[in-house]
Amino acid sequence: MNVEGKHYRSIWREANSAVRIIDQTKLPYRFEIIELKTLEDAAYAIETMQVRGAPCIGATAAYGVALALQEGVELDTAIERLSRTRPTAVNLHWALGQMQSAAQSLEAAFARAAAICDEDVTTCKAIGRHGFEIIKGHAAKKPRVNILTHCNAGWIATVDWGTALAPIYMAHDAGIDVHVWVDETRPRNQGAALTAWELGAHGVPHTIITDNAGGHLMQQGQVDLCIVGTDRTTRAGDVANKIGTYLKALAAFDNDVPFYVALPHTTIDWTLRDGRDIPIEERGAKEVTHLTGVTAAGAVETIQVSAPGSSAGNPAFDVTPARLVTGIITERGLTEASEEGLLRLYPVRA
Amino acid sequence: MNVEGKHYRSIWREANSAVRIIDQTKLPYRFEIIELKTLEDAAYAIETMQVRGAPCIGATAAYGVALALQEGVELDTAIERLSRTRPTAVNLHWALGQMQSAAQSLEAAFARAAAICDEDVTTCKAIGRHGFEIIKGHAAKKPRVNILTHCNAGWIATVDWGTALAPIYMAHDAGIDVHVWVDETRPRNQGAALTAWELGAHGVPHTIITDNAGGHLMQQGQVDLCIVGTDRTTRAGDVANKIGTYLKALAAFDNDVPFYVALPHTTIDWTLRDGRDIPIEERGAKEVTHLTGVTAAGAVETIQVSAPGSSAGNPAFDVTPARLVTGIITERGLTEASEEGLLRLYPVRA
Repeated sequence: MNVEGKHYRSIWREANSAVRIIDQTKLPYRFEIIELKTLEDAAYAIETMQVRGAPCIGATAAYGVALALQEGVELDTAIERLSRTRPTAVNLHWALGQMQSAAQSLEAAFARAAAICDEDVTTCKAIGRHGFEIIKGHAAKKPRVNILTHCNAGWIATVDWGTALAPIYMAHDAGIDVHVWVDETRPRNQGAALTAWELGAHGVPHTIITDNAGGHLMQQGQVDLCIVGTDRTTRAGDVANKIGTYLKALAAFDNDVPFYVALPHTTIDWTLRDGRDIPIEERGAKEVTHLTGVTAAGAVETIQVSAPGSSAGNPAFDVTPARLVTGIITERGLTEASEEGLLRLYPVRA
Repeated sequence: MNVEGKHYRSIWREANSAVRIIDQTKLPYRFEIIELKTLEDAAYAIETMQVRGAPCIGATAAYGVALALQEGVELDTAIERLSRTRPTAVNLHWALGQMQSAAQSLEAAFARAAAICDEDVTTCKAIGRHGFEIIKGHAAKKPRVNILTHCNAGWIATVDWGTALAPIYMAHDAGIDVHVWVDETRPRNQGAALTAWELGAHGVPHTIITDNAGGHLMQQGQVDLCIVGTDRTTRAGDVANKIGTYLKALAAFDNDVPFYVALPHTTIDWTLRDGRDIPIEERGAKEVTHLTGVTAAGAVETIQVSAPGSSAGNPAFDVTPARLVTGIITERGLTEASEEGLLRLYPVRA
């Protein structure tokens, strides 16, 4: 998508040069591009969330393997290192599996990583087209369509276009009056910082709300549908996504608001049925007790917002059971959140 | 309750001197006591949330009327001014009604305000005792009782003891191993800033969590019960409380976790049945986009945490329907969240 009129992907490599990413820990205050030159650069970028979002993590891991080969690190060592970076997103393991088969040579490794990125863009565009049909259906019934989303499943969470946001971009570009309620998504505020930044840059009307507010808005009839992404979805349609997604799904269910999850097939974990078997990452307490932002003077500053001496817990994801999900949108179309529904789109996994 | 070994109420008046409050906008970083000398001081304190919490707002409004008379302002003018400060908490109007009847003289006005404060303390202690029995029941079944609370319904939200936190203080003091999950409660972080500060000062084990995390913890069996306060409860048991309460009630219901609401009778609005008729305050966007805290150097600083240029919505309360509330704890005991249940405790309202 465009940033100040110039097209970017979230990760790219110009001919024979370093791999480049947008440092997402600096957004929305600074738009900084950093170079990944080594395996450790790639692992660090994933661990510290300079890149985040399941598809973008997968793409970065793929390039991480290629960078490892470039510096003479063994393939198995590279894969082992990268697989330890984050536990919940399954795209990471999918991408590493792809690289294990394809990385016969340095050239082949870079080619496969580039192909993973290109495929992700194609996939996200297809998700966007299928989700667009859903939004179009709502637009036929009322002049403005209000969509709630949680966290960031936009173009910077993928290589381009996004998963949950791709249908929204396409609807907006097609002239549909969409307005997005952007959950701020504590503790890391990916909604307020990244989704709002993305939507603003593209000109999509949106309003940031606290994570607490969505239920009330649904009670008030101010939400027509929800679309979120996912970090891992089981073959039975249970959805692990950013912490708090489950609460919004409960509220949507309670208020008859359709709740959709947009995902590429690489996010489906065919080895699991029960979402309770998905490992949930526990992150540091400081993400909860401290926040970083800009002061009125324009300086980036970190402040503590909690009572000094109080500890904090920080589970990063939760699991929304399939029974609360209205539909799953993949690159192959819309289906119900169930094993039957997913197997209809991906029969080879039966 | 005690602050560094010294007993405080949230509002008090020493003989013939000014009314004093703890400035809750400065907690947990600064413990500052400020004087209210005029009607406008009291109105400002309520509007800017130097005092907050429905019972504490009521007590401050009562003293506000007395201060108005002291400076020669008409009773009706004072009541009109104070009734406009905040729309959702019904204790405000209850206290102003009390003052309208009682404020025949300056002396009588101060006496009635002081009595309102004393009655609130007695009421909160009684709520504490009834809620304590519930916690004791859980403690009989397992060694540690995990309680989730939202926002701050502690002693500084009342005159002393609190509503939702009173049972927790009593259980802790009685030697029961209670641990509190403290929702940070965006956007104003009354949980992370005030509840955590209160619990820490009293030595009650607790962990701050984001508002997003409670549903996941309930799914994991890590929450035994929820107790929250309320700003207004209808005669049918619908509960207006801090934004996000509804989401926690949904999660509690979905996971068979008991969900209690603790309140003094002054919080019941006997004129309303349907919670959807409760006016919901919409506060400023800056509460969502900006946060205040302390830097590593100890300075109090305000930072913007959202994408520049993005607007924010900020409804301050939501309504939890009675069907999601396991029980209401008042100074007269525990009852079900229904008109029948409330009338059993308060038959005069039938």
